[in-house]
Amino acid sequence: MQTLQEYSKTIMFPTGKPNDAYKQYFIGQSYIAPISTEQVKIYNVTFEPKCRNNWHIHKAKSGGGQMLIAVGGRGYYQEWGKEAEEMTPGTVVNIPAGVKHWHGAAPDSWFSHLAVEVAGEETGNEWLEAVNEEDYSSLK
Amino acid sequence: MQTLQEYSKTIMFPTGKPNDAYKQYFIGQSYIAPISTEQVKIYNVTFEPKCRNNWHIHKAKSGGGQMLIAVGGRGYYQEWGKEAEEMTPGTVVNIPAGVKHWHGAAPDSWFSHLAVEVAGEETGNEWLEAVNEEDYSSLK
Repeated sequence: MQTLQEYSKTIMFPTGKPNDAYKQYFIGQSYIAPISTEQVKIYNVTFEPKCRNNWHIHKAKSGGGQMLIAVGGRGYYQEWGKEAEEMTPGTVVNIPAGVKHWHGAAPDSWFSHLAVEVAGEETGNEWLEAVNEEDYSSLK
Repeated sequence: MQTLQEYSKTIMFPTGKPNDAYKQYFIGQSYIAPISTEQVKIYNVTFEPKCRNNWHIHKAKSGGGQMLIAVGGRGYYQEWGKEAEEMTPGTVVNIPAGVKHWHGAAPDSWFSHLAVEVAGEETGNEWLEAVNEEDYSSLK
């Protein structure tokens, strides 16, 4: 398996530092780098192989939600009640507020996506249960 | 020089179709592909070598402006009164409303950037003169 250093050379954005602020909501190690802190806030989030976040919901009175733009490696996005969708560089996912979902790396690959914050009123996140281990392990 | 088809294989986003709607404001041929038409609107804009847009200003009563994220090839961004800045994959530029600027390809390279629309009140564009030919030609 690639090291973070080796993987970092394959993508155009920095991988940043350990994503400690959200550690409690992730299985495995993730990394975060700010890409834009003005105007539209954008972060590059990198997941080590097998790393994924727990099910969660972006809350907002209006607007809000998040967009993901895959920029390296291979991973997945899944909405509650639907099949997981593979994400590879160039894949874009729109996540409206109110949608229960998770995202993360494939079992055998590093993965990076830009996380684009969508402006809204009274925004916040509701963090829920971890992804079922059997369901995750069944992904290729 | 690479053809569009050859260049397209080197980037992770589609190049789309000729950017006819803005043709009158560009020198040379550009192409546009919608990346996200919901939430935050994002387009991939591709410039053939030597192609650039005219000086322009994003107007807004509040908010507004644009962000550029270079995703392929090599190009430039310049604000009025400043040196042109080189953009290569991963370069991010925040362009607040009110700033006179242009962007485009290097003389010898295709160039693509994501154009991220920043929400605002009473937004619009003011298109101005073409970039001075001698100034552009002096870029590497």
